[in-house]
Amino acid sequence: MLNGERLVNRPFRWAMVGGGRKSNVGYKHRTGALRDNANFQLVAGAFDIDPTQGKDFGVKIGVSSDRCYDNYQEMFAKEQDREDGVEVVTIATPNGTHYEITKAALKAGLHVICEKPLFFSSAEGEEIKDLAEKQNKIVGVTYGYSGNQLLLQMRAMIEKGQIGDIRVVDLQYTHGFSATDEPEKTSDAQKWRVDPKVAGPSFVIGDLSTHTYYMSQMIMPHMKIAKLLCDRQSFVGSRYPLEDNAHILMRYENGAVGTMWVSSINAGCTDGHRIRIVGSKASLEWWDDKPNELRYEVQGEPVRILYRGNDYLDDLAKEDERLGALHTEGLSDFWANIYHRFALAIEAKNSGDLKTLEALIYPGIQAGIDGIRWVENCVRSANANSTWIEYDHSGQKLHV
Amino acid sequence: MLNGERLVNRPFRWAMVGGGRKSNVGYKHRTGALRDNANFQLVAGAFDIDPTQGKDFGVKIGVSSDRCYDNYQEMFAKEQDREDGVEVVTIATPNGTHYEITKAALKAGLHVICEKPLFFSSAEGEEIKDLAEKQNKIVGVTYGYSGNQLLLQMRAMIEKGQIGDIRVVDLQYTHGFSATDEPEKTSDAQKWRVDPKVAGPSFVIGDLSTHTYYMSQMIMPHMKIAKLLCDRQSFVGSRYPLEDNAHILMRYENGAVGTMWVSSINAGCTDGHRIRIVGSKASLEWWDDKPNELRYEVQGEPVRILYRGNDYLDDLAKEDERLGALHTEGLSDFWANIYHRFALAIEAKNSGDLKTLEALIYPGIQAGIDGIRWVENCVRSANANSTWIEYDHSGQKLHV
Amino acid sequence: MLNGERLVNRPFRWAMVGGGRKSNVGYKHRTGALRDNANFQLVAGAFDIDPTQGKDFGVKIGVSSDRCYDNYQEMFAKEQDREDGVEVVTIATPNGTHYEITKAALKAGLHVICEKPLFFSSAEGEEIKDLAEKQNKIVGVTYGYSGNQLLLQMRAMIEKGQIGDIRVVDLQYTHGFSATDEPEKTSDAQKWRVDPKVAGPSFVIGDLSTHTYYMSQMIMPHMKIAKLLCDRQSFVGSRYPLEDNAHILMRYENGAVGTMWVSSINAGCTDGHRIRIVGSKASLEWWDDKPNELRYEVQGEPVRILYRGNDYLDDLAKEDERLGALHTEGLSDFWANIYHRFALAIEAKNSGDLKTLEALIYPGIQAGIDGIRWVENCVRSANANSTWIEYDHSGQKLHV
Amino acid sequence: MLNGERLVNRPFRWAMVGGGRKSNVGYKHRTGALRDNANFQLVAGAFDIDPTQGKDFGVKIGVSSDRCYDNYQEMFAKEQDREDGVEVVTIATPNGTHYEITKAALKAGLHVICEKPLFFSSAEGEEIKDLAEKQNKIVGVTYGYSGNQLLLQMRAMIEKGQIGDIRVVDLQYTHGFSATDEPEKTSDAQKWRVDPKVAGPSFVIGDLSTHTYYMSQMIMPHMKIAKLLCDRQSFVGSRYPLEDNAHILMRYENGAVGTMWVSSINAGCTDGHRIRIVGSKASLEWWDDKPNELRYEVQGEPVRILYRGNDYLDDLAKEDERLGALHTEGLSDFWANIYHRFALAIEAKNSGDLKTLEALIYPGIQAGIDGIRWVENCVRSANANSTWIEYDHSGQKLHV
Repeated sequence: MLNGERLVNRPFRWAMVGGGRKSNVGYKHRTGALRDNANFQLVAGAFDIDPTQGKDFGVKIGVSSDRCYDNYQEMFAKEQDREDGVEVVTIATPNGTHYEITKAALKAGLHVICEKPLFFSSAEGEEIKDLAEKQNKIVGVTYGYSGNQLLLQMRAMIEKGQIGDIRVVDLQYTHGFSATDEPEKTSDAQKWRVDPKVAGPSFVIGDLSTHTYYMSQMIMPHMKIAKLLCDRQSFVGSRYPLEDNAHILMRYENGAVGTMWVSSINAGCTDGHRIRIVGSKASLEWWDDKPNELRYEVQGEPVRILYRGNDYLDDLAKEDERLGALHTEGLSDFWANIYHRFALAIEAKNSGDLKTLEALIYPGIQAGIDGIRWVENCVRSANANSTWIEYDHSGQKLHV
Repeated sequence: MLNGERLVNRPFRWAMVGGGRKSNVGYKHRTGALRDNANFQLVAGAFDIDPTQGKDFGVKIGVSSDRCYDNYQEMFAKEQDREDGVEVVTIATPNGTHYEITKAALKAGLHVICEKPLFFSSAEGEEIKDLAEKQNKIVGVTYGYSGNQLLLQMRAMIEKGQIGDIRVVDLQYTHGFSATDEPEKTSDAQKWRVDPKVAGPSFVIGDLSTHTYYMSQMIMPHMKIAKLLCDRQSFVGSRYPLEDNAHILMRYENGAVGTMWVSSINAGCTDGHRIRIVGSKASLEWWDDKPNELRYEVQGEPVRILYRGNDYLDDLAKEDERLGALHTEGLSDFWANIYHRFALAIEAKNSGDLKTLEALIYPGIQAGIDGIRWVENCVRSANANSTWIEYDHSGQKLHV
Repeated sequence: MLNGERLVNRPFRWAMVGGGRKSNVGYKHRTGALRDNANFQLVAGAFDIDPTQGKDFGVKIGVSSDRCYDNYQEMFAKEQDREDGVEVVTIATPNGTHYEITKAALKAGLHVICEKPLFFSSAEGEEIKDLAEKQNKIVGVTYGYSGNQLLLQMRAMIEKGQIGDIRVVDLQYTHGFSATDEPEKTSDAQKWRVDPKVAGPSFVIGDLSTHTYYMSQMIMPHMKIAKLLCDRQSFVGSRYPLEDNAHILMRYENGAVGTMWVSSINAGCTDGHRIRIVGSKASLEWWDDKPNELRYEVQGEPVRILYRGNDYLDDLAKEDERLGALHTEGLSDFWANIYHRFALAIEAKNSGDLKTLEALIYPGIQAGIDGIRWVENCVRSANANSTWIEYDHSGQKLHV
Repeated sequence: MLNGERLVNRPFRWAMVGGGRKSNVGYKHRTGALRDNANFQLVAGAFDIDPTQGKDFGVKIGVSSDRCYDNYQEMFAKEQDREDGVEVVTIATPNGTHYEITKAALKAGLHVICEKPLFFSSAEGEEIKDLAEKQNKIVGVTYGYSGNQLLLQMRAMIEKGQIGDIRVVDLQYTHGFSATDEPEKTSDAQKWRVDPKVAGPSFVIGDLSTHTYYMSQMIMPHMKIAKLLCDRQSFVGSRYPLEDNAHILMRYENGAVGTMWVSSINAGCTDGHRIRIVGSKASLEWWDDKPNELRYEVQGEPVRILYRGNDYLDDLAKEDERLGALHTEGLSDFWANIYHRFALAIEAKNSGDLKTLEALIYPGIQAGIDGIRWVENCVRSANANSTWIEYDHSGQKLHV
């Protein structure tokens, strides 16, 4: 079990761009990165678009004031000059800025951890992937929920054939907090999320379903979508052309089919993040609001419920165990797991340990590009009158 | 509360075609019809395609042997000659025979209660509707689950605006009992269900989703589907061209959207019959495996769970109350409610009380036709490469 | 599966004392007895203390008016003179009258089915047991919930050692419908239940916990209470000296311990009828509000949930199966099962088939006496300042 | 919302006694204390009874090797000499050493945070309370679960009269991980827990139920136990005279009654930490395995489920909010909340801000003494043949 002992040589010097005082997600990044002080040490930041606010905040969370910078450009420049300069930076800014900042960070010789959806286009993703490769750096993408250990349990069970051949993939990430346009009026974070210039070509498809899509791919890495159909709507009209609800149908290459329901207008919903994988022999089902439980349903047998932290789980599902059976984990633990794996990836990358790097399950640049492609394919279908399209996995656009 | 006291003048003389010893659903009809002996009295039957079996069975369930007939033709003929002949007949035979037997029954002057899916084509449905009208008889369709009182609670709450405008309709009727082709090998009932000649143009769409479609229409009578897309599969290949799994997307005339997942290969699933209606203010959710609970989720408020039998429910949801709060009801109660309403419909029809008949919520011939149309539209889309089609509500085919 | 076919030679001629128009439980008796018309036929009744009401009601539920009697004395006398007179009578009157009516019925040569709690004293119970023996009649007691098939599943699993040695028995039957004294003001049934002259020495201990005690004994027939401690309260003061809440501790002869919480002031409770049996290896848990589910928890393994109607259940749990897997059962089905077993018991008694009778699991006179003794022991402890007492199983009082 | 910004002037210099590499609970302390690096900084430790192990571990979690001490005596002595010496120490050693180490720490001028159960006798507790008072230090007790925000929601709702007068308190903390004596064979932590010399006069009563007792008192600070009865058992015989299961009955001064079931032999149990408070109008129920949900059941109304992080909660329940609605919290968050409140208490104590200190809800020395008294009273009743005793709140023993 993880108990706070360092698994990396020493904590990496870490900085943030964005994620300041009013940022809900910024806190999740720090919670994840600083867990146990084993992996990362927050030493610098450009926390806010308003430099005064950013500096004030940075000091309050323990960053020395001279390393609270006015903007990321200044930070990258000045930190490069320090012997103890930052080694890795997290980008928790609105979507429209991810690409620029990531590029600058890589060029400044930093590992990058970036919010999802990564960029606006997979072309940008491929470009950054090449750059990261060249710079010998990792780019991690914070699909925070994916740090839940029972998702790895699902992966292990599927890999071992415990549900048979996959037939149906049933995905859902919905809530109702945008049932009205109230959030746009009161929250800055919501305001930019429904503005295509800042958010990109989608609202909930990018903001929510990229999580679930990645989780599904982490669980079933062998499954590849062949065709897709997306029907999207803006029930709150002012969000048009961005959607606040969408239904997506998938056909996988192996003949399986899938659905994704993504929504922020599912009024009153408290448990709308769900994954069900139906196999020829059994199904697995996980709900984010019961994150310590996994339902394993073998046809013709009693339903089984597996609980996190127990010995009977697969080793893969116990790698990140911290608290032990009976002790519930929540989202902050999942973020800690993700950041823990980012640290292991950085260490492996730095030392050129490709074997470790390849074996490590974590959301890296490819997962980020795949997420962008997911959005691109969904939007392409939606814009083609919600018809079936061939799923584009190609990445060829970049190279044209 | 219903307590067994007769609400009709006297029990109707009732017969069955099919529904014999090995029929699982036959027993549900009897359980529903004979509840309290208040509404129906089983006096005759042609219970089995094998007359000897049928007669043996009929006697064992209390029918006098001279009224256990070899086939429905004989029964209709002989009973017509009796002063105390049957008045209403239930048809619980394979789908492919419904049309013939219903026609014969109506011509013999009987009210008809028939299993779903009613017939193979809506044209047949329209023809029978006309015939029933002419004969002044009702045709009831046994969407058995629709007798659950909380569905009427949903209807009442929606009608009163308690969820706002409907935006998303999320339907599911799935189970996993046909995950393999084992059932075809061991069960006669399954054998014909996957044979297009007997079952009609669909397997699970007709067998399962017609229930859920009717329930959704009973809950939201003002909602009309404008367009539909259906993607269906046969995961057990021998079932081709009939499907054992399908995903259906709906667009309603008011701008709402919907989905239906219907499946008999959802391995291990025990709770796959669900209805969620998302409104602009709140959502309602009902699961068939928790039939005494209704989830009412107002955005921004604690989730509420309403339990059957309580005073706080709408009058509409208490019309069929039998047991009182804390006392769970199950499927046999729902069937009893449906049959109770059939009896009220027959009484009203016989007496020409159109006002009562129109106010009475029950699955009649129109619900049966709507169910066939649902199947027709789904199959039409599926067969057109799973593309969007305009939903055909017209019934014009018949009259061409 | 039960499908309505008669398992007894012919339906018994059946009558009711009490259970009239306003009686909630009266309807449950009829629902149970008349299910499928396979076992009982309602031919007579003295349904109400008000003869006019009783007659009016009887006719409305299909009894011929000349067999709707003014009182039970008249009924027993007149029916004895008929060749087609009643053979078995159900007593659904206030507790204080059970003893008299049962005695009269047995003397009139009738089998008896009586509401719980059976009588006021176990002495009366022993007397009636002797009388029944002499008259060669059965006395059934309607512990209606005990007809749930999963309770028999628990019995079978325990018998087979699947939970190891029993250590803790955790029982609860609580609700909140008497949280205030409102029920006394509006319901006749409640009024007598809190009047010691009519209800006997207890309110909720007799009214509720006798069910749960019997169910526990049916599940674990080898377990015998050695000592007991009962602490009871009247939170609504007007109910004193009868209790509306009690906690009971048990010590079993084998070293196991147990608790019972019984209450009608558990405000807002909707799921308060529960049984958990903890063994040395595993536990079993059943809740009445999820009556189709049984939780089987083996220490160190995933939790299993067993669902009613599935092939994997023990034969004992499938004897009364009617609807099949996926189709929910509720309280009316459980009552039907109990009455079905009463019919089998009567048939066996009539024919002198002791072997069948002994093998048949159903709540008979001994279960009724055991229930009275349960109440007596609880009250004795409560009245002795809620101290530990030796559990009196003796029945010796009667014979002194 | 808490976002990592410091609410204390600067993080306190913090050390641990115990809680080394193999200690499951040690990690929880660090997770709680070091969350956000806002409140505490781990600078020293005597982590293990084996100094070499302790030092090796300390360095791996980031403590400089010269401040990894051989034992607490050395640590207290040497740290006192440093200008940057520790200010507060956490004691996570076996129960039998708490008293000695706490005394030494207070004498060394340190604030103390100690594992529960605090000491062996309330006399020791009172002595330490006096000493802490004299030294102007706080003693915090790590009832970790009590950091769950919904418990404070319960407190706020009860205080506002939303459930009426309290009638029944239903407490449970059970699991099945000690169903056999396997744990004694494999776990050091279990070994000492069943050894009276190290663990004190109880096993599960002290180890588990002190949590739940404190939580109940935090929720209902006005409720005082008047009488108590405890029945305890050792189902695994080698644990005698310590118990692995106990049932406790309580009578409160206001006439309410209560029960506690505490067990480590509740085989297979995954959800056995529960609190239900029944009032005259409504009940509140919380389960530790669904820590983000609170059930609010008003008699005669639909059941309400409140979810953590939502605006509709009481301010008291949002003081420690970190993640926002929809984002699940778990045990590590609860520990962080407790430690956050310890930090606020220390700051207030240091600055002499009694007003803040009194208003602050956190488990301090009195809660620790109350926990010991709880154990003492339980054991006293159990040893007096499980009879009712007057609950001793007096603390007079100390002063005799």
